[in-house]
Amino acid sequence: MNLTILGCYAATPRTFTNPTSQVLEIRNRLFLIDCGEGTQVQLRKNKLKFSKINHIFISHLHGDHFYGLIGLISTFMLLGRTADLHIYGPKGIKEVILLQLKLSNSYTAYNLYFHELISSESEIIFEDEKVIVKTIPLKHRVYTNGFLFQEKIGDRKLDMNAVQNHKIETCYYQKIKNGKDIELEDGTLIPNEKLTFDPIPPKSYAFCSDTVYDESIIPIIENTDILYHESTFLETEAHLSEKTMHTTAKQAATIALKANVKQLIMGHYSTRYASIELFKEEAETIFPNVLLSDDGKTFEF
Amino acid sequence: MNLTILGCYAATPRTFTNPTSQVLEIRNRLFLIDCGEGTQVQLRKNKLKFSKINHIFISHLHGDHFYGLIGLISTFMLLGRTADLHIYGPKGIKEVILLQLKLSNSYTAYNLYFHELISSESEIIFEDEKVIVKTIPLKHRVYTNGFLFQEKIGDRKLDMNAVQNHKIETCYYQKIKNGKDIELEDGTLIPNEKLTFDPIPPKSYAFCSDTVYDESIIPIIENTDILYHESTFLETEAHLSEKTMHTTAKQAATIALKANVKQLIMGHYSTRYASIELFKEEAETIFPNVLLSDDGKTFEF
Repeated sequence: MNLTILGCYAATPRTFTNPTSQVLEIRNRLFLIDCGEGTQVQLRKNKLKFSKINHIFISHLHGDHFYGLIGLISTFMLLGRTADLHIYGPKGIKEVILLQLKLSNSYTAYNLYFHELISSESEIIFEDEKVIVKTIPLKHRVYTNGFLFQEKIGDRKLDMNAVQNHKIETCYYQKIKNGKDIELEDGTLIPNEKLTFDPIPPKSYAFCSDTVYDESIIPIIENTDILYHESTFLETEAHLSEKTMHTTAKQAATIALKANVKQLIMGHYSTRYASIELFKEEAETIFPNVLLSDDGKTFEF
Repeated sequence: MNLTILGCYAATPRTFTNPTSQVLEIRNRLFLIDCGEGTQVQLRKNKLKFSKINHIFISHLHGDHFYGLIGLISTFMLLGRTADLHIYGPKGIKEVILLQLKLSNSYTAYNLYFHELISSESEIIFEDEKVIVKTIPLKHRVYTNGFLFQEKIGDRKLDMNAVQNHKIETCYYQKIKNGKDIELEDGTLIPNEKLTFDPIPPKSYAFCSDTVYDESIIPIIENTDILYHESTFLETEAHLSEKTMHTTAKQAATIALKANVKQLIMGHYSTRYASIELFKEEAETIFPNVLLSDDGKTFEF
């Protein structure tokens, strides 16, 4: 699993900072999360393949999280895309994208599927054989969801020495990976745990932006491996944080602590501060495992 | 009069090239022409003051000419703008901007005036005491206008030596600048031409993008000082030019020649070519005074 930060600054795009967008690669699937203005250029700069993105998750319809979406959809069109594209986001996203396509008299040659979200409860919005994605209802000035990406438990790993010692034929391998015991031709039963190792533990990633400090998300993100939580402000601006329905670094760390996550990544920084290191310093007074996102940075887990 | 090119490349924004946007400063007014994705960042990079932009002209609703507009409007809002903002563009522009503001539950504290264009004839869309702006109906895949910016003839310039020799009082200066003759106290009539110089000749700038080769614009742009005309392709791609309703460098030069403009600026380049110098070379076979626009370049006239 790896995560590339295309943009992690609040509000407007600037010369050296970009609004929210990130790419999560998980079990060979590439998920785009949020799409602020300039995301397509950030994808190019970070040499990420446009064609590998088939699912885009939009947290909310504030500009710094989705004004780059229409441009990306248009560029997919110009690049001759044919693969389906799925977009998950708040109700209204379909209307605004289709209106812009209509006004420019441009229609995608690929299928564009909108999955509009309206629920205030966590729900599964994507699932295939390897990954499941759930919403994390957040509290912000407009309807907002975070997203929880969970790997499913994979097949058990074959212990090739054991399998070959017992001269088990290849056609049984998948059954063994699925956890089945094997009866040899002489009638001996070999229990599965003698033929396999435990599968790689599934990882999980929670994206929470934008939101006010809200403990009601804890049951949803509990024990997550990696939590990206917005930290627009420091505690010195707690009043602004409350007013604008954002979170301080200390509050983000408190959520990380109470939800027992392994790793906290901070982001959605206000550009008023001299250094983003200040967010880490403040968060570490509460929770030890803090990483700072920054535009162009990739994390491998 | 000076012109700053924020972006002059066709289709999608890329790492080092930006879609169409330019700022025309004319008689101390700052006009933004087109607003592709990333325009607000280009404004910052070129150190242009956001607050000086009160009028935005959008040629057509293809993404590479207007997907940056909603972001700029939002940023004006975040910067605490209070001055009126006027937007001139094709019908539909108001609906799409207001829908996006509504979905983000964001409303501008400044007045936003939309001047929606529907005419297929040239019309005056802006006029004050110093500048007049007319549309140039263009032929493209969607409803499109170019824009003709004309300085008005200014006051006559006082010949300070002559004025002081005749001991004319300051209170008559504006009358003289307006072209009036002056009668001295002894009854002598001093004709205006003895007291003034001709005013600075008014300049004009025509912006034509996007369009197929179309001689019907010639009467509108005839004798213009500076013509920016799109040249998406070279003649080797004339078939694509026709198909996509764009212009080749040679065709742009032909328009410049037939309209008897003083200077042609080329732009809206397809990124398929190794060098933009090729556009200049091709155009110069037809018309001698050719300049190449490029992102971040400023022309002074």
